[in-house]
Amino acid sequence: MLDLRIALAQADTCVGDLEGNARLVLDAVAAAAADGARLVALPEMTLTGYPVEDLALRAAFRDDAGTAVDVLARDLAEAGHGDVTVIVGTLGTTTTPDGPRPTNRAVALRDGRVVATYDKRHLPTYGVFDEARIFAAGTTTTVLDVDGHRVGLLVCEDLWRADGPVAELADAHLDLVVVVNGSPYEEGKDLERLAHARRVAATLGAPVAYVNQVGGQDDLVLEGGSFVLDVAGEVVARSPQFTPDLLVHDVPTRGGALRRGRVAPPLHPDEEVYRACVAGLSGYIRKNGFRSVVLGLSGGIDSALVAVMAADAIGGENVVGVSMPSAYSSQHSKDDAADLAQRIGADYRVQPIGGTVDAFMRDLPLDGVAAENLQARVRGTILMSLSNAEGHLTLATGNKSELAVGYSTIYGDAVGGYAPIKDVLKSRVWALARWRDDHALDHGEIPPIPESSITKPPSAELRPGQVDQDSLPPYDRLDAVLEDYVGRNLGHDALAAAGHDPATIALVLRLVDRAEWKRRQYPPGPKISAVAFGRDRRLPVTSRRRETPPTPDVAPTPSTTTPNLEQP
Amino acid sequence: MLDLRIALAQADTCVGDLEGNARLVLDAVAAAAADGARLVALPEMTLTGYPVEDLALRAAFRDDAGTAVDVLARDLAEAGHGDVTVIVGTLGTTTTPDGPRPTNRAVALRDGRVVATYDKRHLPTYGVFDEARIFAAGTTTTVLDVDGHRVGLLVCEDLWRADGPVAELADAHLDLVVVVNGSPYEEGKDLERLAHARRVAATLGAPVAYVNQVGGQDDLVLEGGSFVLDVAGEVVARSPQFTPDLLVHDVPTRGGALRRGRVAPPLHPDEEVYRACVAGLSGYIRKNGFRSVVLGLSGGIDSALVAVMAADAIGGENVVGVSMPSAYSSQHSKDDAADLAQRIGADYRVQPIGGTVDAFMRDLPLDGVAAENLQARVRGTILMSLSNAEGHLTLATGNKSELAVGYSTIYGDAVGGYAPIKDVLKSRVWALARWRDDHALDHGEIPPIPESSITKPPSAELRPGQVDQDSLPPYDRLDAVLEDYVGRNLGHDALAAAGHDPATIALVLRLVDRAEWKRRQYPPGPKISAVAFGRDRRLPVTSRRRETPPTPDVAPTPSTTTPNLEQP
Repeated sequence: MLDLRIALAQADTCVGDLEGNARLVLDAVAAAAADGARLVALPEMTLTGYPVEDLALRAAFRDDAGTAVDVLARDLAEAGHGDVTVIVGTLGTTTTPDGPRPTNRAVALRDGRVVATYDKRHLPTYGVFDEARIFAAGTTTTVLDVDGHRVGLLVCEDLWRADGPVAELADAHLDLVVVVNGSPYEEGKDLERLAHARRVAATLGAPVAYVNQVGGQDDLVLEGGSFVLDVAGEVVARSPQFTPDLLVHDVPTRGGALRRGRVAPPLHPDEEVYRACVAGLSGYIRKNGFRSVVLGLSGGIDSALVAVMAADAIGGENVVGVSMPSAYSSQHSKDDAADLAQRIGADYRVQPIGGTVDAFMRDLPLDGVAAENLQARVRGTILMSLSNAEGHLTLATGNKSELAVGYSTIYGDAVGGYAPIKDVLKSRVWALARWRDDHALDHGEIPPIPESSITKPPSAELRPGQVDQDSLPPYDRLDAVLEDYVGRNLGHDALAAAGHDPATIALVLRLVDRAEWKRRQYPPGPKISAVAFGRDRRLPVTSRRRETPPTPDVAPTPSTTTPNLEQP
Repeated sequence: MLDLRIALAQADTCVGDLEGNARLVLDAVAAAAADGARLVALPEMTLTGYPVEDLALRAAFRDDAGTAVDVLARDLAEAGHGDVTVIVGTLGTTTTPDGPRPTNRAVALRDGRVVATYDKRHLPTYGVFDEARIFAAGTTTTVLDVDGHRVGLLVCEDLWRADGPVAELADAHLDLVVVVNGSPYEEGKDLERLAHARRVAATLGAPVAYVNQVGGQDDLVLEGGSFVLDVAGEVVARSPQFTPDLLVHDVPTRGGALRRGRVAPPLHPDEEVYRACVAGLSGYIRKNGFRSVVLGLSGGIDSALVAVMAADAIGGENVVGVSMPSAYSSQHSKDDAADLAQRIGADYRVQPIGGTVDAFMRDLPLDGVAAENLQARVRGTILMSLSNAEGHLTLATGNKSELAVGYSTIYGDAVGGYAPIKDVLKSRVWALARWRDDHALDHGEIPPIPESSITKPPSAELRPGQVDQDSLPPYDRLDAVLEDYVGRNLGHDALAAAGHDPATIALVLRLVDRAEWKRRQYPPGPKISAVAFGRDRRLPVTSRRRETPPTPDVAPTPSTTTPNLEQP
């Protein structure tokens, strides 16, 4: 029996785009077959996209997905790849006492048809996952024969659990375990993932081929980083993160040693987070049908970093940066904003807010926080007006530290369809900016972020001489408490035991609790009162599959249309 | 053996308010015991409030809830009610292969201690429910002995399923089934609920005592309507909907006939929906610590109805109604707004938007939809400024029809912390207004809504002569399609088969799909990119239990504080 040449195609699928996703499969299989691969594996729910959420609950979509699998199998055979075994993810349907329910299914295609199916057993329902809401769990295991090799199938969460399919496959004498995944990026998660893969390789006595989705989808960043692991737990092949890739590798029969192949080196932690942010932003823009973005440029570090991320995602010429100075804006802020825009080649505009603020206050005099919020809201209205008039996606530039403590104005600087650094603490924002500038220097380019934006004390400039540290602890101390309170869910006593300063704990918890309450009070569209028929359906933003027939209108409205809720 | 006198206490609990909820129990038991009751049952998760969502995942909160149960049991005994059996809902903890996990628990208290526990078996994870995310399911059944009567326990969803505890109790020779519930209102759901209760009464050969939570909690309206059903399926006692109540009834031993007691009559469908809206609004205002609301009064039917609901919830003197006329506002609109405010005794203000809009357009000329949205955003900024300056909760006045088709401006008329009629179709808005006016007439009061607000053609008045039907089908036809498409999730072909006009289907589906996409693009705070450590935690808005120690700051910030995200 020959070695089995496999190919792991880490694809950037789009939820709901059955035709586009099928094309990704056809292209990957053509490339893999040209390289001699006999088994090609693609990510979890390849055809439907992932996370599919409540879209899976539409019977019409499930029917279409079923048809798409059959069409894909035939198309693969017609393209001359009928002898290659292709593992793709899709939506299944199973019968339960409550009627038909969707499953998270992997199918093997060969000879123009489906030769095997496997329904995901463990349905994650925590953190960003809500799979128990959507899917019925599978009840069996599946072992494929590919050119005499025994190949076991798992889907994502199945790998993270010792019970269920992994336990049941222990005596299956596998030559290979293929795991198809839609595993979102979290810092440090790759180590956990590898530890689980090593456990499974040891338990099943077989190498593990792990293929992961890549790219931004809605509010998730799928990280790629597909890999092949030998029985001893060594990574013998690995795809890079955050970019589509085809990883081809030879797997010998049971007991044979795997040779080391192409292994992408790990990224520096700051580079990894930076690239994750760009991948998420890039996917969100593209999959929603936009070609350009608009954001406010204050001269500060947050908006500078977001602008550079946007330029890296779609090119600086597609970034509209708007300086919106008030009487409290310093000259260096205005200079830094213009400097940044010039460095990245952005479309730079200046829209002072003084005239509008004065007119508003003549009719409704305000002071204190209400007056500060007004400035932010006039700026938000300018950005949304440009978005409405010119079709850009509005980006919000808030970071995790300021959002956590409520240092942000709802309907003001919080406006926007996507917030690229919403999950990045302020101290990390500086680190990412520094990494990006150093990276440019390493390549002989001009650092995109002006040095003074990185070094000056942060300020919202909503009243004379204001700086963030008037009302907040130093960011390193603030962020340390936030990591433990917001990130690790530690309570007050546990925070004190972890050695944080008592006064900082008390202040941060009070600010976070208040901000969380207020943030939940003023959500998106305001809260629904579930009277007539239930809550809003939870459909993916970037879904390309809707009920609208016939086909001309199934794609999202293109970017020439105003990108927000509006008066028609 | 004597008849068993039971009391069903449909309480209006608040999520996280362990002390307040325990007081509700003590008060209910005192009243029930004074009436001779031997068994008192309160709603699902009485002590913690429901839906508790991710708050249950905080270990510190679980510990506090455990302590609160023991304290409550002792307090009941010390108050002289140790011989009464009291069934309350709370959070349990169970051990799973993945560590300790919360359960949705009912406990029976007697003699100063917990004498029985039951963990909910069926965890609803659909629609507004996400219980599989939070809880581990119970695995056993529980039968209590109360003065010689055999009492079986169920929690909410358990009643809706034939498998699990209902099947397992079939041979338990019960004298009574007690079901504790946190069952949200949906129109027509009471019939479904009764049908399930009848099936269970027949299966178990015992009367069913069903006690339900009442009042608004976050985005849910719990409807109350607790009842006692005899074995033959007749409702022999019933509490009214939407108000706390104590329903006392005698249950004989197995086989004895139940006498008919107090049975609240059913409400007219329009009255029921109206009262549900008021209950939800009232709970949201009170549990979030507000005392007043602010909303825009356009003279149209939507804002008129919301203002009257607010007046019914908290008194007209606590309603700030703001007329914000533009050049396109008709005189009759301004007159109708003033008339309405006067009828309900609201604090009426006039804030014209022309000066601000003109100043804005001098710096950034706009036309078309962008100019229309600008007017809505200036109005939204006025409402939020008043909210910031004076501490009112901002109400959004949009209805389900216009939100479904995107006839709304994000950050404009969509601003607000609560949208009382967001789930009411436009044709129903008119019906509710008519019912409310007729109801006033029936009581010899002045109808609160001016006749002309009900009868005139609806218009957003964002350009000269604009009316809704310039761009939308007549509301009766629009709403019929929305009920089937949004409400019942029917696809295109099923809508056509249901007899809707093909052109209306095509238009409505295109509008809804686009609006849904846009609404999901511009959510609350903008979308999170899950890079560093996960998505926002999902905590209830009105939770009174946070980590902030010591106790002074555990209640929500009072209404004198600005009720939105803000610059501190």
